[in-house]
Amino acid sequence: MTITIIGLGLIGGSIGLELKTKRFAERIIGVDKNPEHCRVALERGLVDEIHKLVYAVQQSDLIILAIPVDAIKTQLPFILDYVTHQAVTDMGSTKLSITEHVKDHPKRSNFVPSHPMAGTEFSGPEAAVPGLFNKKVAIICDMAKSNQKSLEAITNLYMALNMRLIFMSSVEHDLHTAYVSHISHITSFALALTVLEKEHNEKNILNLASGGFESTVRLAASSAEMWVPVFDQNRDHVVEVMETYIEKMTKFKEYIQAGDTRKVHDLIKKANKIQKTLNSSPWKQQ
Amino acid sequence: MTITIIGLGLIGGSIGLELKTKRFAERIIGVDKNPEHCRVALERGLVDEIHKLVYAVQQSDLIILAIPVDAIKTQLPFILDYVTHQAVTDMGSTKLSITEHVKDHPKRSNFVPSHPMAGTEFSGPEAAVPGLFNKKVAIICDMAKSNQKSLEAITNLYMALNMRLIFMSSVEHDLHTAYVSHISHITSFALALTVLEKEHNEKNILNLASGGFESTVRLAASSAEMWVPVFDQNRDHVVEVMETYIEKMTKFKEYIQAGDTRKVHDLIKKANKIQKTLNSSPWKQQ
Repeated sequence: MTITIIGLGLIGGSIGLELKTKRFAERIIGVDKNPEHCRVALERGLVDEIHKLVYAVQQSDLIILAIPVDAIKTQLPFILDYVTHQAVTDMGSTKLSITEHVKDHPKRSNFVPSHPMAGTEFSGPEAAVPGLFNKKVAIICDMAKSNQKSLEAITNLYMALNMRLIFMSSVEHDLHTAYVSHISHITSFALALTVLEKEHNEKNILNLASGGFESTVRLAASSAEMWVPVFDQNRDHVVEVMETYIEKMTKFKEYIQAGDTRKVHDLIKKANKIQKTLNSSPWKQQ
Repeated sequence: MTITIIGLGLIGGSIGLELKTKRFAERIIGVDKNPEHCRVALERGLVDEIHKLVYAVQQSDLIILAIPVDAIKTQLPFILDYVTHQAVTDMGSTKLSITEHVKDHPKRSNFVPSHPMAGTEFSGPEAAVPGLFNKKVAIICDMAKSNQKSLEAITNLYMALNMRLIFMSSVEHDLHTAYVSHISHITSFALALTVLEKEHNEKNILNLASGGFESTVRLAASSAEMWVPVFDQNRDHVVEVMETYIEKMTKFKEYIQAGDTRKVHDLIKKANKIQKTLNSSPWKQQ
């Protein structure tokens, strides 16, 4: 089997690394508009060869789009135009906008919209790491709209990455990722902006970072190129959950301001329940 | 030397563990109003003996208060009443309210207000872990108000924990911890509250948690008993930084809502700068 990975950043690069280790494909072709990414990906052995998009598509059995969601929307119809037997999937953090965009394409059934719930705050092929996907969840959307052969290929791909599969519609996907993943990134960005504005002395940030700040702000290093189009494509859900967040924060602030320690206590006790939810996974990594 | 640790939770327990390993004291006495904490601390070897407060103080050379900041305010004057030669320190996350409370005590100079910037979201003696303080920062406040001998004792204590010391006033401490540490906990609590309200299906939270949510919400498991009095004692600074946070969040939301991708991009690029600050530490753990 020949695989093409389009986009040799954190996700595309880590997939290449993993599939090469597992000998999942005889040949992995990389495509990236950034020549430096191509060079690093070859040097690190994340892919075997670098080619132009159309040639790579024509040579492949399986095509993985690991580029920002705005670029997926532009590239996907173009790629599907060249598809004959190939299975195509994307790794985008939004789904509805992408699937709507290709819904009438004659090769729509070769496309399996998916989203591996894995990542770090780093980007580029230098950030590719082994084990990134291990035991995490991958979402496959609108499976009834994909053909059997393509579904099989993408399912096997995620099996090779040692991921657990869940299935939902694009609509559900965008709702739930806004509610859990997208809002987490936004709260981190806002925390970084706040601390950078309030704390003028960089040394203080550094000295006090181990008091919980460092892990909470980690995602604030995430790439604008990736996240801006995600928030834009998932605008309604993202705005909705941000409004709830601002409400909670405002209420919290009012209670603290009023010295109402009983109500602050109740809010924290309620928030504590998240721990129970997170600990309930049988897949929880040791 | 005999040390008394008052409060055998995460912090007190971890100090006991570390000092026992390093053989820093011949004898470590534990005090805790919770008999179960005492039992676990003895069983885990975090302390050598359990005694009542007054007896423990009288037996000791060094006294460490590792209890919530409201309890520190109640207990500290009472402990200082029994102090003759002992050095006393506290591990509280606020400083001004505590130091103001004992400022006229005749034994004030035996007290060295301090704050190790270390912790996890867990609590109780079961949560005590080795290496918790390793290479982190400890703050000592208002050093001119403590006597030489007590300062020496507390400095040596933190050296034994392999911490790096920094010095500031109680006023500065409360300002900077609000700006960096306290706000991080609040954003996590608010994130947990938001996700628990919006996402009714626990399974979705769990499935999507690896998309960054888990690390961002980690602190939301933190103890209400510890944090309520912190926010209350540091109310003005905490409210001030929360207001800035709500402003940032609201602006972010407005830009997303308006589809102003250029401005969203600028905010994220600005937030990204936090990474550079956090990576600039020569003490950064490998």
